[in-house]
Amino acid sequence: MKFSPLVQELIDSLKCLPGVGAKSAQRMAFHLLERNRRGGSKLSQTLALAMENIGHCEQCRNFTEEALCEICQSPKRKIATQLCIVETPADVIAIEQTGEFQGRYFVLMGHLSPLDGIGPDDLGLDILEKQLATGQFTEVILATNPTVEGEATAHFIAELTQTHDVEISRIAHGVPVGGELEYVDGNTLAHALSGRKNYSF
Amino acid sequence: MKFSPLVQELIDSLKCLPGVGAKSAQRMAFHLLERNRRGGSKLSQTLALAMENIGHCEQCRNFTEEALCEICQSPKRKIATQLCIVETPADVIAIEQTGEFQGRYFVLMGHLSPLDGIGPDDLGLDILEKQLATGQFTEVILATNPTVEGEATAHFIAELTQTHDVEISRIAHGVPVGGELEYVDGNTLAHALSGRKNYSF
Ligand SMILES: [Zn+2]
Ligand SMILES: [Zn+2]
Repeated sequence: MKFSPLVQELIDSLKCLPGVGAKSAQRMAFHLLERNRRGGSKLSQTLALAMENIGHCEQCRNFTEEALCEICQSPKRKIATQLCIVETPADVIAIEQTGEFQGRYFVLMGHLSPLDGIGPDDLGLDILEKQLATGQFTEVILATNPTVEGEATAHFIAELTQTHDVEISRIAHGVPVGGELEYVDGNTLAHALSGRKNYSF
Repeated sequence: MKFSPLVQELIDSLKCLPGVGAKSAQRMAFHLLERNRRGGSKLSQTLALAMENIGHCEQCRNFTEEALCEICQSPKRKIATQLCIVETPADVIAIEQTGEFQGRYFVLMGHLSPLDGIGPDDLGLDILEKQLATGQFTEVILATNPTVEGEATAHFIAELTQTHDVEISRIAHGVPVGGELEYVDGNTLAHALSGRKNYSF
């Protein structure tokens, strides 16, 4: 005895979502069927549109349903001389929200991970090279995550970028603003110490 | 700065799933877009079919895409004299998997919960009464959960059932088979003691 074929199919389909196992999928299916059919139908339509129409920006690889994303389309950004390299679309949003950066982005959509079979080609580094070859950019900011994989990826891209005539920088590691020293991990604290600057009065 | 309109819409739509907040929805959207478009499209199609076609069995209220569910359609079950009342479709499956029950079910799709505005009508008790009025059943087994709400619901249905000429039983509470007494909660242990039976040699 199983659920009816279509109920079972719905449960199985929901398991394609990351972090959703058999029990969660069942709970989701019952919830939609019993309490939110409108939400389920809306999700169905949006999923169809999204899977069909969302691609990668031709310049920065960010997700977009147009050829160029909103940032790459912006006249101000078109003439930007700084290129900030990040791992994910969420990182773009995080940096945009600081309001401190007016340049362009390049979104790797991940990081180098030989064990998972993710190499330079999967990160679109050939597209990155073409961007650098235009000579538009005078600085490349490596803003990958401060993780082992992020550092390795930053290092790889730094070497690749060296063959072009641009400055290469890495975002600073250090104590988070507003954080208490007591609760900062040792590695971060070591970076904060070695990266210390002269006190500016 | 936000994600592109369609990416944002996908993230928002995914939030209709129970237990999925902004961060999880974002992770799900990126995962589908980047690694599993086929799964996303399949989910879209199945959702549309399911929201459109899955209804409740006319007899037992379980989810089914037909007028009667598989169990209610079975010739053996059609003449069953036992009716087992459970809270959810998952409970039907759990009982079926024991292989110990050959009767019919009635699925409440929840339990009485005045605070959430869930009353007798929401549990289909009018349909239950019609089933009992046929005179087919000689025993009603109350198999709602051993929770406060489940007990209250069982009690309510027992009173309603009393007006019909049927035996009423409640599933036994006690120590789980294979469990260690030491780890059983006091309430369950009290039930296990008060429900003790003569030892059968
Ligand atoms: Zn772009
Ligand atoms: Zn049925």
